[in-house]
Amino acid sequence: MSVLVVLELLGVFVFALSGASLAVEKQLDLFGVLVLAAVTALGGGLLRDVLLGDTPPVVLRESRYLVVALVAGISVFLGAAQLEHIAAPVRVFDAAGLGLFVATGTAKALQAGLGAVPAITLGCLTGIGGGIARDVLVGVVPVVLRRELYAVPAVLGAAVVTLGDGVGAPGAATAAVAAVVVFTIRVLGVWRDWHFPVARR
Amino acid sequence: MSVLVVLELLGVFVFALSGASLAVEKQLDLFGVLVLAAVTALGGGLLRDVLLGDTPPVVLRESRYLVVALVAGISVFLGAAQLEHIAAPVRVFDAAGLGLFVATGTAKALQAGLGAVPAITLGCLTGIGGGIARDVLVGVVPVVLRRELYAVPAVLGAAVVTLGDGVGAPGAATAAVAAVVVFTIRVLGVWRDWHFPVARR
Amino acid sequence: MSVLVVLELLGVFVFALSGASLAVEKQLDLFGVLVLAAVTALGGGLLRDVLLGDTPPVVLRESRYLVVALVAGISVFLGAAQLEHIAAPVRVFDAAGLGLFVATGTAKALQAGLGAVPAITLGCLTGIGGGIARDVLVGVVPVVLRRELYAVPAVLGAAVVTLGDGVGAPGAATAAVAAVVVFTIRVLGVWRDWHFPVARR
Repeated sequence: MSVLVVLELLGVFVFALSGASLAVEKQLDLFGVLVLAAVTALGGGLLRDVLLGDTPPVVLRESRYLVVALVAGISVFLGAAQLEHIAAPVRVFDAAGLGLFVATGTAKALQAGLGAVPAITLGCLTGIGGGIARDVLVGVVPVVLRRELYAVPAVLGAAVVTLGDGVGAPGAATAAVAAVVVFTIRVLGVWRDWHFPVARR
Repeated sequence: MSVLVVLELLGVFVFALSGASLAVEKQLDLFGVLVLAAVTALGGGLLRDVLLGDTPPVVLRESRYLVVALVAGISVFLGAAQLEHIAAPVRVFDAAGLGLFVATGTAKALQAGLGAVPAITLGCLTGIGGGIARDVLVGVVPVVLRRELYAVPAVLGAAVVTLGDGVGAPGAATAAVAAVVVFTIRVLGVWRDWHFPVARR
Repeated sequence: MSVLVVLELLGVFVFALSGASLAVEKQLDLFGVLVLAAVTALGGGLLRDVLLGDTPPVVLRESRYLVVALVAGISVFLGAAQLEHIAAPVRVFDAAGLGLFVATGTAKALQAGLGAVPAITLGCLTGIGGGIARDVLVGVVPVVLRRELYAVPAVLGAAVVTLGDGVGAPGAATAAVAAVVVFTIRVLGVWRDWHFPVARR
């Protein structure tokens, strides 16, 4: 397995942790925990591939994504009492997963011939689509739409990939820079508690 | 740009206004406002194209749809305090957008070879799918399922297109008639406060 | 029509009954009742086909699925007061529909070349996806994620199909066995009020 695949599976794992944690908090049963783990981890990539017409989606073509997500879900279910002890590292890996998903999602959309704005949109959707589906499934207005600087790093990262593509920079290097940008801003945002504005009415 | 495209973009714009307004009301942040604007305006067409296998969906292939939706979202965010002053014209344009989306959605479904009932269904979905997604994202039971005569004009308009197709009438003329039918009934429904029945239990 | 199609349409009918009943309970209007009937009955198969790239989905290519779902929705709307009298038979047919949908969904996923874990996942999604969409549309956390042994029979049934496929057993026989397994466990689960565990925190 390449470094990229390892990083990707790590991203899937921590995204699944976040879905499973919310499911435990909302008192879903074991099946609900597994569904929320899988939806959170794979929902963004699944949506991306369906919209690009690349079906069955990569996360279904290769079993490892689902397996990793389910393992994360079972781990959370069994170790639910210990969840708060891993909150900090999970946040860091989550930022890494976000960076990776946004970078690869944007790159794939550009390869499919989409323009800049749709490609950035699809890249962000790859990174945050799973979290939106997770929240909707338990009746919560998606956290990413309400507060926390979660979307801003995603948009910037997707813009870096699109810009790099526009000037002909090598794809792998641009994607790496973009992922680091997303990761850094996201971690800074959590650390400094940055928020996005809400409209005055 | 043809007249049709201008009308379509106007429809996208007002649908986006409605999504962004709800987002402001629900105190979403700027990113949430943009997402709701885009989902409301483009969700129906996106769903239609995914179901017909026409991917990437038209609203992603051409950047202008997303750009118009985002501009509408930013406008609402910046001018949130003035929103009530434009409520009446927005309702009129919304009815026009509904008519247009239903007519083109039904026509596209028929072209793809679907039967009458599925084509009418897909046409309605094109017109109201974005609004349903908008409401679900902020935890509201979709308004179109509960009250207001929003769906009836959609169904009738889609039926007109299907009927016209069945008797071999020219597509553009039928679509225009259908859009006018939807628009008229919708505006009448709002004006006279028509409602659809709820079952007695 | 083959026996399979008749059974399938019966499954569609009872799934639609469950969607329409919830819609009536939630005081949706006639249009909302029809939408919930169709979404519950056809949502799982629709999602399956979109994910497998088989578009337009079978449930739209053939009008009969939609027609049967709409007839069920209208019946519930008109006879809402009598609904409790048919609760028991509906539960039995619902279990049959679940078995059938899971078995055919898993088989189709395997035919499309998916591995065991994704095929089982897609088979379950075919059986329970419509019910999840139904609950999300009316703002309820999906019942299948919370309690009741609804998912366990689905997973086991999908596993039977996958196992049968792995050892080269004839598809029709395996699917029949799987459907019976799902049906039996589901009916037993309702009868004995079996539940799935919730994590201790």
